[in-house]
Amino acid sequence: MSTRTRTLEKTVSVIGTGHTPFGRLADRSLEDLVTDVVTQALDDAQAGPDEIDAAFVGQFNSGLTPLAFPSSLVLQADERLHGTPVTRVENACASGSAAVHQGIQAVLAGTARTVLVVGVEKMTHAPADLVGSALLGADYELAGRESTTGFAGLFARVAQAYAERYGDVSDAMAMVAAKNHANGVQNPWAQLRKDLGYEFCRTVSDRNPMVADPLRRTDCSPVSDGAAALVLRAGADGGALATVAGFGQANDYLPMDRRDPVAFEATALSIARAMDMAGTTLEDLDLAEVHDCFTIAELVVYEAMGLTPRGEAGRAISEGWTQPDGRLPVNLSGGLKAKGHPVGATGVSQHVLTTMQLSGRAGGMQLPRADVGLVQNMGGLGVANYATVLRSA
Amino acid sequence: MSTRTRTLEKTVSVIGTGHTPFGRLADRSLEDLVTDVVTQALDDAQAGPDEIDAAFVGQFNSGLTPLAFPSSLVLQADERLHGTPVTRVENACASGSAAVHQGIQAVLAGTARTVLVVGVEKMTHAPADLVGSALLGADYELAGRESTTGFAGLFARVAQAYAERYGDVSDAMAMVAAKNHANGVQNPWAQLRKDLGYEFCRTVSDRNPMVADPLRRTDCSPVSDGAAALVLRAGADGGALATVAGFGQANDYLPMDRRDPVAFEATALSIARAMDMAGTTLEDLDLAEVHDCFTIAELVVYEAMGLTPRGEAGRAISEGWTQPDGRLPVNLSGGLKAKGHPVGATGVSQHVLTTMQLSGRAGGMQLPRADVGLVQNMGGLGVANYATVLRSA
Repeated sequence: MSTRTRTLEKTVSVIGTGHTPFGRLADRSLEDLVTDVVTQALDDAQAGPDEIDAAFVGQFNSGLTPLAFPSSLVLQADERLHGTPVTRVENACASGSAAVHQGIQAVLAGTARTVLVVGVEKMTHAPADLVGSALLGADYELAGRESTTGFAGLFARVAQAYAERYGDVSDAMAMVAAKNHANGVQNPWAQLRKDLGYEFCRTVSDRNPMVADPLRRTDCSPVSDGAAALVLRAGADGGALATVAGFGQANDYLPMDRRDPVAFEATALSIARAMDMAGTTLEDLDLAEVHDCFTIAELVVYEAMGLTPRGEAGRAISEGWTQPDGRLPVNLSGGLKAKGHPVGATGVSQHVLTTMQLSGRAGGMQLPRADVGLVQNMGGLGVANYATVLRSA
Repeated sequence: MSTRTRTLEKTVSVIGTGHTPFGRLADRSLEDLVTDVVTQALDDAQAGPDEIDAAFVGQFNSGLTPLAFPSSLVLQADERLHGTPVTRVENACASGSAAVHQGIQAVLAGTARTVLVVGVEKMTHAPADLVGSALLGADYELAGRESTTGFAGLFARVAQAYAERYGDVSDAMAMVAAKNHANGVQNPWAQLRKDLGYEFCRTVSDRNPMVADPLRRTDCSPVSDGAAALVLRAGADGGALATVAGFGQANDYLPMDRRDPVAFEATALSIARAMDMAGTTLEDLDLAEVHDCFTIAELVVYEAMGLTPRGEAGRAISEGWTQPDGRLPVNLSGGLKAKGHPVGATGVSQHVLTTMQLSGRAGGMQLPRADVGLVQNMGGLGVANYATVLRSA
């Protein structure tokens, strides 16, 4: 790929957000979830549906729901949206951030002033093997040369490879789980609002069985339903909640045998691109929402963002750097781990929760000071990688 | 939606194209098809893979292929693409044009100078009922209140509603089929290269049975595999084959009971938006590639673009206006009807074939004079609508 430096030619603001509870929402349809968050986001933005120039929907789907026309859901939310361009984008578990980035680009392109971004997924209704094979397909179909124990099995192999190279991080993973569960208690939308504690997360037990060695149940994010939305606008007038300082994307090979299973190089590249565009360094960040689909992923992302050198991610959690009172609080929302992971909604949710921190609206999750936040979202084992730097308005 | 006029703030050029044959390509994988067209397009553009700042893939999929990570296919095409941002976009049968429009926007946004756009689909391997239900799902799942005879049944209902309001157009549909089959003979990539003639298309027979009254087999596009690609670049230097003069998108409701089944209002809106941005009128157009998934669709699109008043589309074909020597040649490529319709590839293919006309590279299909061309692509029954005006460079 080109190594040209990208610059942000215009100001793009987040002016409104919407979010449903994440969890098992058996009685809510995709349409209902979308309508809910679109209504919330437009109300919050004080934007009329007739002001929306374009909309983007992040949904993974991949057979989880029979509906094959996700973009059409948005028009159902309000009849004044009739005629609005709506496009679905998909990049596996990063589909939500893909939608956010396309929304940002539509504003930068000058073809839209105000853009609606929606992420949505229903997963809990599907049989576990369908969810597993859908997620697995998202990572392994092309490689497909070995049997695995599902999607958790793939990340277990990352943890194994990491341990072989740098030493065991099972305790560090348990600390990540404990931190994110403790953080999730303060998030009103989180699927799992229970402070499980380090000892529970560390110990294999009937209530915390090994899912795929070395990943215990508490190392895995849950299967979830949910939706999130935001409204983007050109410029930064009085209604801005946060502005986009930079964004970056990088894709890696699907087959694991074509790359270092522990390095997550394209994840690092996406973060570097976003930080370069924003002109920020790690020291500038007040918080980060990162993609902890499994606890090992949060550790690897610490290294991908340069918080620690390779092989030393465990220090960042064991020394408390990423706790709410640490030098870089990570996943104050509870992360995918506690908040839940309705695939297409996840990236949008990360942007919503970071915006809440930057606009002082994060309630019990609120940091005393939050001026710059990083969002990091990945599809597959670091295959599709998105990063965004948001700044308080 | 907003009624604000969109303007094109920068010049975006098509600098290279690639295209596989369309048809039953049982021995070619998705990966092989993508690699083929990416290689062709980069060679044609004389662009190195390391110059590509971003890539977009249009694929419908919807369960037709097990692979759940379409964006990852592009990196497989050339190892120098490693790290390039790749995003899949999906809008049913308009997924290809969705990818083209996102590519244009990435250049306009200033975050990419050179963009690769790929459209791909494999459909002929899937059982007919899966193809049918996938396409049907793309149009009917939400409405789902009546039984139909498949996707053809939906367009048959459009034809029936049209006939009830304006009179029978079976003969006009047969003329469209005959025109597009005759045109397809000159397209080296077309799936059906046979000049069937008007009488054959008009007559219901063993070889041309009724599929869904009043649609005969010759009124329906075939099930196809294939891929197409193009390279876009900021500016218009010596290598430009065509430039983007305007582009527009508009979405309509999925449930047919919420709209006029014959008017295709959002299709008209997408065309008007593209024409307005380009500052062109119908009289400026030298050719159009339109979405004739069924012959009735081509007729309805004549009206959506304003070629005839409502209810008079038959005149445009019976009086020869849209023949190669008419006032506005439509589907010189053979259209979806003869060329084939590998869903995600279709919109990209329409842009490739229009670019070929505008750059004098259309071989046996070439018009003597081609300066301005319109591309029109729709997903579902006019649900997701894209239009692009291209101009010779």
